[in-house]
Amino acid sequence: MFILIIQADNRDEICPKENRNYIGGCYGKKIIGIDLGGTTVKLAVLTVEGAIERQWSIITDTSEGGINIIGDIVATLKEHLHKFQIDLKDIVGIGMGSPGQVDCKEGTVTGAYNLGWWCKQHVRSIFEDAFGLPFYLDNDANVAAMGERWKGAGAEADDIIFVTLGTGVGVGIIVDGKLVHGATACAGEIGHIVVDPGGFQCTCGNRGCLETVASATGIMNLTKVELSRSQAESQLKILANNGKIDAKDVFDLAKSGDVLAQAIVDRFAFYLGLACGQLANTLNPRYIIIGGGVSKAGEFLKNKVEEQFSNFVLPTVKDRTELRLASLGNEAGVIGAAGLVIL
Amino acid sequence: MFILIIQADNRDEICPKENRNYIGGCYGKKIIGIDLGGTTVKLAVLTVEGAIERQWSIITDTSEGGINIIGDIVATLKEHLHKFQIDLKDIVGIGMGSPGQVDCKEGTVTGAYNLGWWCKQHVRSIFEDAFGLPFYLDNDANVAAMGERWKGAGAEADDIIFVTLGTGVGVGIIVDGKLVHGATACAGEIGHIVVDPGGFQCTCGNRGCLETVASATGIMNLTKVELSRSQAESQLKILANNGKIDAKDVFDLAKSGDVLAQAIVDRFAFYLGLACGQLANTLNPRYIIIGGGVSKAGEFLKNKVEEQFSNFVLPTVKDRTELRLASLGNEAGVIGAAGLVIL
Repeated sequence: MFILIIQADNRDEICPKENRNYIGGCYGKKIIGIDLGGTTVKLAVLTVEGAIERQWSIITDTSEGGINIIGDIVATLKEHLHKFQIDLKDIVGIGMGSPGQVDCKEGTVTGAYNLGWWCKQHVRSIFEDAFGLPFYLDNDANVAAMGERWKGAGAEADDIIFVTLGTGVGVGIIVDGKLVHGATACAGEIGHIVVDPGGFQCTCGNRGCLETVASATGIMNLTKVELSRSQAESQLKILANNGKIDAKDVFDLAKSGDVLAQAIVDRFAFYLGLACGQLANTLNPRYIIIGGGVSKAGEFLKNKVEEQFSNFVLPTVKDRTELRLASLGNEAGVIGAAGLVIL
Repeated sequence: MFILIIQADNRDEICPKENRNYIGGCYGKKIIGIDLGGTTVKLAVLTVEGAIERQWSIITDTSEGGINIIGDIVATLKEHLHKFQIDLKDIVGIGMGSPGQVDCKEGTVTGAYNLGWWCKQHVRSIFEDAFGLPFYLDNDANVAAMGERWKGAGAEADDIIFVTLGTGVGVGIIVDGKLVHGATACAGEIGHIVVDPGGFQCTCGNRGCLETVASATGIMNLTKVELSRSQAESQLKILANNGKIDAKDVFDLAKSGDVLAQAIVDRFAFYLGLACGQLANTLNPRYIIIGGGVSKAGEFLKNKVEEQFSNFVLPTVKDRTELRLASLGNEAGVIGAAGLVIL
């Protein structure tokens, strides 16, 4: 406890976060960024300007209810800081993105089932005890939004929305330079806005959520419907009959002109464009940034979504909120986590 | 100019807005709240705690491109302050809500066509010149949101969304205690989120906007459709055949059990519940507050919307974002305008 207080004071002396000259005042110091995922934990040492100097990763050990995860991170961090000869006093703080529902004030995570964490995890207190450094924790989509804003497609705009399309849909919202958490830390659940009432069953219990049509899972839902109703000749149909297909196959075939695959992508873009139009009308961000695995379909995907977006956004907002593809890829997590410490 | 600078300094000395003890430090002082509407301008003298001490209104003179509006407000304000024997030095500042698109930083209004204002109006500079007091300006829906948060159904929660249902749909969003304006002051255009792709034509050029189904105009759109397709015996049908009906007739008849009117209200509630679900999932406000003329249908309307809302909101958000009816009525405007000065 005594150590914690000293460190907190020490940090305030060096770099009060509220001070606008924060980054300047921390010149030469480092930040640790951690991106905790269901498969790997990515770690990085960054400069206070957000440049990655060192990075490595470890396997996420989800066995035994994920009991070893935080201990493993602490151990690898200590080992690597020693190896890199980085002294704790030269580190401004540690930031981490986590799956699940994060209580930023408490520094806890609940419902991160893909980590094996079935009950609330008191993450911050463990890091503070181990390093005596300021520790910031947020939801992984929020952290990626911070990363894209700081060093990626967000171009340091004050108002952005980051939409990550993977198995599901995750979203981080930044308003006036700050992450939006909502009254009870549930903001950004845009994967579950209903865009097709009565549509596909969602894991949340409702029907027609964005996630059921505009994610990798969604692509497969739409594919099943198109395969069953379309009579068109299609390479996708042949591929599906011969075995397993995935979202990437659908986008690749759509790009190459397969009619059935194109119909699926058009439907996907319809729903994502509709949702982006709703977001733009509601919050008028400077950018809506599309990232995650599905966004690897690139400009082809973006153009399709943009076309639909322009049908659904208020004409006066259309030219004021721009759709962009994420630019940081896998590094958004560690950069954004570092951003939690310093921005 | 000289006077302006002195007043600004003077104000900072008395009550720096950033100071958390602002209200306490201004004890005994007054605020002026102005609610500029297309028919009347409501004005009030309030305490710094938000209690209305005096209020009056004047007709909005929209003739000649609304050239007299601001001059009329300045004149009535001077006259009444003299009458009430209130000295300018005892006034903390003036706040005003206006229709149209408001640039809060510039203190200007554009596109307030219902005032006859076809070009940009430099509102703040006129007030500052006339009174030498700090002057704050915002969009009328934002101002009403501030009012409801401060002294109404918002119960001082940090995160609320205020939805006003009149001829159209206006929305004010408060995140973390602050009004959201977006990157280019277009946030809150929720009247134009598309909830029924391909649906009714909207004034904005798109189809199926919330405003085309969940406003007084929307009720009439839905009524036309139901009247033309329903074979049910209905008092509403008789009334419609005999002359003009309005949104209030539809709600009154629905309450009294008219099947056709109930079908219309159910459809209205479906779309509003869908939109509220989307808003709750996106921003997780503590309250979504429903106000405006249409909300006079009261608990009957609220219960219908709540029923639909619960179908469309993510189950984990459902109990964390509550629908409420606005409680301030017509006074939300002047109270919220005063709130701009002090909150």
